[in-house]
Parts: sequence; structure tokens; C-alpha cells
Amino acid sequence: MPDRPVAPLHGVLAPPLTPFEADGRVAEALLIAHARHLLDAGCAGLVPFGTTSEAASLGLDERVDLLDRLVESGVPPERMIVGVGTTNLPDTVRLAAQATRHGCAGVLLLPPFYYPSVSDDGLYSFAERFIAQVDALVGAPRLRIYLYHIPQVAGVGWSANLVRRLRAASPDHIVGIKDSTGDWANTQALLGIDGLTVYPGTELLLPEALAHGAPGCISATANLNAHAIAESIRLHDDDRNAFDACFDAVARFRRTIQPYGAIPAQKALLARQTGDARWRHVRPPLRPLSDDATEALANELAAVS
Amino acid sequence: MPDRPVAPLHGVLAPPLTPFEADGRVAEALLIAHARHLLDAGCAGLVPFGTTSEAASLGLDERVDLLDRLVESGVPPERMIVGVGTTNLPDTVRLAAQATRHGCAGVLLLPPFYYPSVSDDGLYSFAERFIAQVDALVGAPRLRIYLYHIPQVAGVGWSANLVRRLRAASPDHIVGIKDSTGDWANTQALLGIDGLTVYPGTELLLPEALAHGAPGCISATANLNAHAIAESIRLHDDDRNAFDACFDAVARFRRTIQPYGAIPAQKALLARQTGDARWRHVRPPLRPLSDDATEALANELAAVS
Repeated sequence: MPDRPVAPLHGVLAPPLTPFEADGRVAEALLIAHARHLLDAGCAGLVPFGTTSEAASLGLDERVDLLDRLVESGVPPERMIVGVGTTNLPDTVRLAAQATRHGCAGVLLLPPFYYPSVSDDGLYSFAERFIAQVDALVGAPRLRIYLYHIPQVAGVGWSANLVRRLRAASPDHIVGIKDSTGDWANTQALLGIDGLTVYPGTELLLPEALAHGAPGCISATANLNAHAIAESIRLHDDDRNAFDACFDAVARFRRTIQPYGAIPAQKALLARQTGDARWRHVRPPLRPLSDDATEALANELAAVS
Repeated sequence: MPDRPVAPLHGVLAPPLTPFEADGRVAEALLIAHARHLLDAGCAGLVPFGTTSEAASLGLDERVDLLDRLVESGVPPERMIVGVGTTNLPDTVRLAAQATRHGCAGVLLLPPFYYPSVSDDGLYSFAERFIAQVDALVGAPRLRIYLYHIPQVAGVGWSANLVRRLRAASPDHIVGIKDSTGDWANTQALLGIDGLTVYPGTELLLPEALAHGAPGCISATANLNAHAIAESIRLHDDDRNAFDACFDAVARFRRTIQPYGAIPAQKALLARQTGDARWRHVRPPLRPLSDDATEALANELAAVS
């Protein structure tokens, strides 16, 4: 059993963008400063090493080192849900054991995503071995898993039916899910699973999700718009008119960025906003947003805000 | 420049299946014995750590250790093209530097496969950095790259146009490709690229491919049928009638297995054939073939051979 029941993080959680130097090395100090800034700006927590962090483009040792650095620098582990997804069990177990030993709020678990057609039984078996191996390494069932459902990117997902089976089998370990489909019907089905914490992967679903018991959302655009998203969640229960006005602005911001693609567009805007050109860099196979597209996006955002 | 021009491996190359113990650990001694057996059975070379080896389900350190063990056990490095595909540059560079230092015949390079929609320019940039970083680590341009084109699994591929660009820019490094599409039109387009070694990923394309200058094929079914595939390639230039008869049997074998799915079906057959039940094990998310399906497949194979 966990030491004590842990309340889920309530509010907006940001998956921090990862800044790179021109030669591709991680700009560590800038990442740490950005992580602190996101918490200061109102984020309830951080979700490093998911899709938005370009975790797929980081080496295994880089991921291990960066989490150590974030914790050493004072980012509270209990406010981090750490992405541990890889294609294989041994590396994912290693990353999850590290995050659990640090006392992180949880781990964000992709299904193994190389093989395109895998059965729910195969994914169930993967999750079962994952839990057993991490428990064995950390010496107690302290692992808290948030499943990461983003089938449009990973090619593989956790079906609502499979999530129900996993939660029933391991209620102490399977505590939540990030649903990045943007599909309210799927998010709603997940919110119907007893005791499961559900974070939609976009602030656009906040009105429905908060009304159905979600504690907030995990959103890439929190890298740029954390304060307003946090404020809209704060207002939801207290002041419906103020929420509507605040949420309208939040939704306009998100809808304007969305067509430009998540990572390069947000990095380009952050570079423009902070004056630090390193934010423009992405690792291949991603490509930076062009100067023209950045200018156009900035103008569109100015027009809607 | 490489020390000397290296002739491509001529014949059938096998991507060895990876045997696991019941608890999921790699059965190392059995893998090494299987690798030696494949060479004895007539394989011109081995291509470990591609899709068929379940490389996506192996941890990074496992891949490094297994290659060391294969080389230490006497499998000639100059007869191995080593899969180095991951989603990220640092780990792929590490694996490729190791294989190159061992003097392997080459590395098999998947495109980074997490992001579903990446541009040829993004993949070009990935390959360019990959080459520069491995060269820097091994201290000379000894890296020989076989691109790995299997878009139906990886979700991302090397287009013929991109292959042409890469080969033109780095003719010493980009020496070949494994085309696992099974699409003769694509294989033919690749065979038209000057100086490129093209291995189709199936023996079914041998008649066309050998006639157009391919040195052989890389085929998963070589795990079970190495001798016959090797013999058909040997006969191709010398005795057309004997080739036709031999190839007909080879093609019937392949077509019978194909609907059962590659990895679990071949492992089940190998377990049946060798009496070593460990061959049935796959790592999740894959699932072993059922006993009933194994029996049905074995009967079908008996009927066509």
C-alpha cells in the first residue's frame, strides 16, 4: 500500500518544452528556469518527458540526468508526473523506478508503441510486468501510474475497456490517465471509471471535464498561457460568468495556435516572447517553424487577444 | 574514406529471432547458438536488432550487451548488419558507434519513428547529424549505413527521393537499404539509385530483385528456411530450371506463414522444430501464437512442402 492516499494535482499541468542549444545539446539551465517559471505562473504541476518535451528525441541517459537536475534544482517532485514511455520494458522500468524513488507524483506511461497492431491482452501483460518490476526495484508499491493515451501520435492507445481492466486489477497503481485524443466521448467514458483521475490533454475540454469531476488538464499551451488557463480553472466553481469570459480567451488562444502544430510553433512563440533564440531549436526529425509562419501566428494571436 | 571498398554480403541475410526465458530475460546462449546455426545453414549474414529480433522490446543496455556477446562468441562482425533504430539520436549514435568499432558490415537505420508526420527535410537532418556524430566518436568515416524502410510498422519511412538525396550527399556512408514494403515498384526504384545495395525484405521478390542487381534479401523466414532460400539464390545465375523449382518451394513456405504474422508464428514453429519451448516466448506487447494456431500452421506447411 502507498504510505498514504495522495490527492491528485488540481489545476493546469504543463508538459515543459525542452530547449536546445544550436548544436542540439539540451539547454539545461534554461529548462530549469522555464520549469520554475511555469510553477510561478500558476501551474499546479509539470509533466516532463511527454510528447511536447520531445522526450522521444532525448536519449535514455539524458532523460535520467534531466530529471535528477530538475529535482536537485528545487522543482518539487510531488508536483511532477514524469513521462517514462519508451518502446520497451527495461528502459521504461528504469525511468519509472527513478521517478518513484524521487517521490514524484506519478509517472506518465505510454503503451509500447513500435508495433502498430497489438492486442489489449498484450498491453495488459506489459502493464502487469511493468508494475511488478518497478515494485521489486523500489521495494514497495509506491508507483503511481497515469496512463498516456495519445493514439494519433503513438499509433497505439489504452482503450477505455483496457483502462477499466487495469484499474480493477491494480487500483493502487493505476491512478489516472491523460487523454490526449481531444475526443470528449472518450474522456467522458474514462471519467466514468471509479476513482480514476482523468486529465484531458487540452484546455478546450475544461468546461465539460471539470463539470464531470476532472481535477484540471495537462496542456501543451500552458507553456505560453499558464496563468490564464490556471485562472479559468480557479474561477470554474466560484464565478460562472467570470469563468466564461476567461475561458473564451483561453480557447481562442488554443484554437489559433493549433493549426500551426504544437511543438515548433510554441517554441517559436517562446523565443519571440523571451528574446532567447535557443527556444526556436527543435531536434530532428522535427523542423523549426519558419520566420514567416512565426510572424503570421504572432499576428493572429494579437488579433484574437 | 573507408579503409577499402567493402563488397556487400551476397545471399540471404537472417534477422535472428530473440529467445526469452519464461520470466522475460533474454536466453543469451540460445540466441548465440541460433546465430551460429543460421550461418551454418547458409546465411550470408545476420541482421540482429531489427523488427524480427523484437529489438523494440529490448532495453538499450541489453542491445549493447547482446552485440558484445555475439561478437565475443565468434560470430564474425563482418557478417553482421546491426539494427540501431530508436526514436532518438543519442541512443542510435551509441549503438552505431559500438557496431562500427566492432567492425560490423554495417548498421540498419530506422528513421526516428515516434512522430507520425515528419518531413523528408527533418529525416535528412537526422541522418546528417547521425553520420557526423558517429564519425566523431569512431574517429574516421567507417560507418556504413543500410537504411531500414518498413513504413507499415514504423509509421515513417525513407522515400526513394530522400534515399537518393542522402546517397548523393554521403556516398561513403549511405551504402544500402532494406526495403520491407514488399512493393516491387518501390524496390525497383531503389535499385535504380547508383551504387546503392538493395535488399528486399522478403524472398518473394528474389526473381525480380536478383535480375535487377540485388545481392540477395534480408528475410525473417530465414530463421526457419535459410538453407532453401540460400540455395535458390545460389542457383539463380547458374541453372534457371533448378532455380524455378527451388524458388517455388521457398515461396510456398513464405506464403503459408505470412497470414499468421511474423514473430509469434515463427517462434512457435522454431519451438516445435527444436523442442526448446523457450522459443515460444515473446515479450509483451506481443503475444505467443496459440497451440491451436501453431498446429494448424504446421499442418499447412506440411501440406505444401
